[in-house]
Amino acid sequence: MSDIAGEPIEVYRRSSTQGSSEVRLLAEQARRAARAIAPMSLAQRNASLTAIAEALVKQQHALLAANAEDLHLADALVATGDLSPANRARLGLTTAKLEEMAAQVRAVRELPDPLGRRLEAMELDRGLDLEKRSVSLGVLAVIFEARPDAVTQISALALKSGNAVILKPGREVERTAAALVSLIRAAIRSASLPEDAVSVIFGRAAVAELLTLSSLVDLVIPRGSRALVEHIQATTRIPVLGHADGICHIYVDRSVDAEQALAVIDDAKTDYPAVCNAVETVLVHQAVALTFLPALVSRLSSKGVRLLGDAGVRAVLSTELAATVGEVEEWHTEYGDLTLALRVVPSIEAAIEHIHVFGSAHTESICTTNADAAERFLNEVDAASVMVNASTRFADGFRYGLGAEVGVSTSRIHARGPVGLEGLTTTKYLVRGHGHLAGDYRGPQAKVFTHRRIS
Amino acid sequence: MSDIAGEPIEVYRRSSTQGSSEVRLLAEQARRAARAIAPMSLAQRNASLTAIAEALVKQQHALLAANAEDLHLADALVATGDLSPANRARLGLTTAKLEEMAAQVRAVRELPDPLGRRLEAMELDRGLDLEKRSVSLGVLAVIFEARPDAVTQISALALKSGNAVILKPGREVERTAAALVSLIRAAIRSASLPEDAVSVIFGRAAVAELLTLSSLVDLVIPRGSRALVEHIQATTRIPVLGHADGICHIYVDRSVDAEQALAVIDDAKTDYPAVCNAVETVLVHQAVALTFLPALVSRLSSKGVRLLGDAGVRAVLSTELAATVGEVEEWHTEYGDLTLALRVVPSIEAAIEHIHVFGSAHTESICTTNADAAERFLNEVDAASVMVNASTRFADGFRYGLGAEVGVSTSRIHARGPVGLEGLTTTKYLVRGHGHLAGDYRGPQAKVFTHRRIS
Repeated sequence: MSDIAGEPIEVYRRSSTQGSSEVRLLAEQARRAARAIAPMSLAQRNASLTAIAEALVKQQHALLAANAEDLHLADALVATGDLSPANRARLGLTTAKLEEMAAQVRAVRELPDPLGRRLEAMELDRGLDLEKRSVSLGVLAVIFEARPDAVTQISALALKSGNAVILKPGREVERTAAALVSLIRAAIRSASLPEDAVSVIFGRAAVAELLTLSSLVDLVIPRGSRALVEHIQATTRIPVLGHADGICHIYVDRSVDAEQALAVIDDAKTDYPAVCNAVETVLVHQAVALTFLPALVSRLSSKGVRLLGDAGVRAVLSTELAATVGEVEEWHTEYGDLTLALRVVPSIEAAIEHIHVFGSAHTESICTTNADAAERFLNEVDAASVMVNASTRFADGFRYGLGAEVGVSTSRIHARGPVGLEGLTTTKYLVRGHGHLAGDYRGPQAKVFTHRRIS
Repeated sequence: MSDIAGEPIEVYRRSSTQGSSEVRLLAEQARRAARAIAPMSLAQRNASLTAIAEALVKQQHALLAANAEDLHLADALVATGDLSPANRARLGLTTAKLEEMAAQVRAVRELPDPLGRRLEAMELDRGLDLEKRSVSLGVLAVIFEARPDAVTQISALALKSGNAVILKPGREVERTAAALVSLIRAAIRSASLPEDAVSVIFGRAAVAELLTLSSLVDLVIPRGSRALVEHIQATTRIPVLGHADGICHIYVDRSVDAEQALAVIDDAKTDYPAVCNAVETVLVHQAVALTFLPALVSRLSSKGVRLLGDAGVRAVLSTELAATVGEVEEWHTEYGDLTLALRVVPSIEAAIEHIHVFGSAHTESICTTNADAAERFLNEVDAASVMVNASTRFADGFRYGLGAEVGVSTSRIHARGPVGLEGLTTTKYLVRGHGHLAGDYRGPQAKVFTHRRIS
């Protein structure tokens, strides 16, 4: 490994025992780097992404060697039953995987610049102009589990948006992450950006310390399991961009194209059951339950979906079908597998009420042929994404045309729903005057603001 | 008081001893009210403001009676030295003050609707459209000190933006606030909105409980002293909109119109020294210090400004002027009075560095005749508002044309700088399809997203 950036990798290794003052120092360096990058041109920021993409392919031997060390340790964990073979498989790098990671970085480079957009412009008075401009957020902390590609993707998103990022990888990919970050820092340097824009910390103590630094870290982005997200939300006062739950519903209205609704529910459940935008509960209006529910149970049973319901559901099914429906334990469960809960509701109001009580405000959809019901559902349901006659699976940054997905937020603050690069920006007001004084706008001779919007 | 809304006032009085379950119940009712108001039309929301404005004038006797009770208790506090006469004066209501409060509510009514704005629209594919719409945030908690007019202004802003609000008034205005909230709830009811959209809690225990309810309260807005804001920021995981510090700087560049700069600094310091956008420190480029500083010291001394500086400042002043400049203790002080710190800096870089180290990222201004220096300062200074040749005092929601000011935020998340009604909104993605399935966009026969922006 000594042929490429061996030294930085060693530095990062040793810092596995980062003390609290080291983490603070690293965050201060990140803040400084963020301020240095923020005013840099798009060309400069993009140059760092080009350098990273090139290095990923050129320096694959060093990366694969570091990854082999992680895999070696992972094998021991698999042998003792402490790591599943599936999770072990996710750790592995290959030449093809590195090329894919490089392509991802280049794709971020091709996105439009999220910075420097003139969001508003107003003449406050003659010669006194106000501009609201999109600027970078500052310092991001990204905590992820065992996915090596998260390192390059997150670094690319951060650099593109003029931010610094501090990465905390899962234990199983520490060596791979260290090698990747060394490579990224060297690439950043080669593009004349401050290398402290990307750094890495290891271990629980370091991340616990980082999460206390609310004056130095602007946003925490957890990428991983619900348990990870909930743990972080519960342990920091820094804003967290993410979602712990994805308890999505589809409501089948009394006026419905049943075939279309069946297909939408099938897609929303079976397309990729493990992700947050898969449906967990289907609410069926009682006026159509007698015909719709049996068709739904038949169709999904045949696809291997385990169905759960309450007495109301079983009441409208034949004895045979009812026997295939288990007892729902509670409505606030994200199954994340081929399990679907069913409930009969007396009205659209009851459906919306159920969604508000048991949902996670992630994505909710109505299947209806009634335009009024559709608009009512869109207006009244309080969630990040609300849909009509579409699979909940569409709630995703790429499908929404955001170019890249930083995460999906169920918070109402800052960014909500699938979040693209815009979620890594904030705004700055710029005022350009000619010696204007606030005192002149008061009193008997007061000047008057024009407040004229400039296009 | 029994002639108007006497009963509700009593209810609120009794609830001064709100237990933890009562606060949670109240927050749940607020959440329900918020969801009910969110889809209501602008006309409905505005009708509640009309009703509030009318009631403020019509029911002034009851309000003045409640206020008299607060004033009576306040007099006792003044007598024992526990309340300053200035703060006592801020508590008092008069007929004229109530009319002014009513006018404020009507002014909020006249603002454009912050809800239902189509922020983005995109065709994802034929027949599958995405819309990003501005929607209300949900439940606000507003904690303020001894200003009765905060009750009506905040309630008006919340209702206009489709939010519910839970108010926590300072001890000294509890009776007045209770009477105002009773009046507001009655007015809301009369406009057919849910009265739980505005409620009030009293006492430290209740507010401590409220600040734990992160699933029910979306945003906390502290209005008051720095100590209040810092206390709240330190004790809740709910996002806080506000600022603890306002340490604003003006940098006098080497190329400067000295007369203009003197006038700008004078305005920024003396126009209203107690507010957060007043200047606290002036940084003077060493190339002009020899001429500029004596003029500045003379001008501000004559206006009663206490000047502080370091050895560098005194070195360029005559013995006589130097004697009027005190020793600056540290640069991270918000004086909030007629005190101004002065420092000589060797360069614009050093000025920006000083601002980043000691500033609060609130408002920073440069006085310069050099366009490059101006743009550099605008680009590189990391603050909510950055200005050129203008008094820092312009950083204000009304002056920025926002119509109303919810607060000034020095956070980078959600809203930054002076915040108008837009800061009380979030977004919702609406997807309208015709049975679209995510699975159709994968595999060999994959459909392709069009991602065509709709204007």
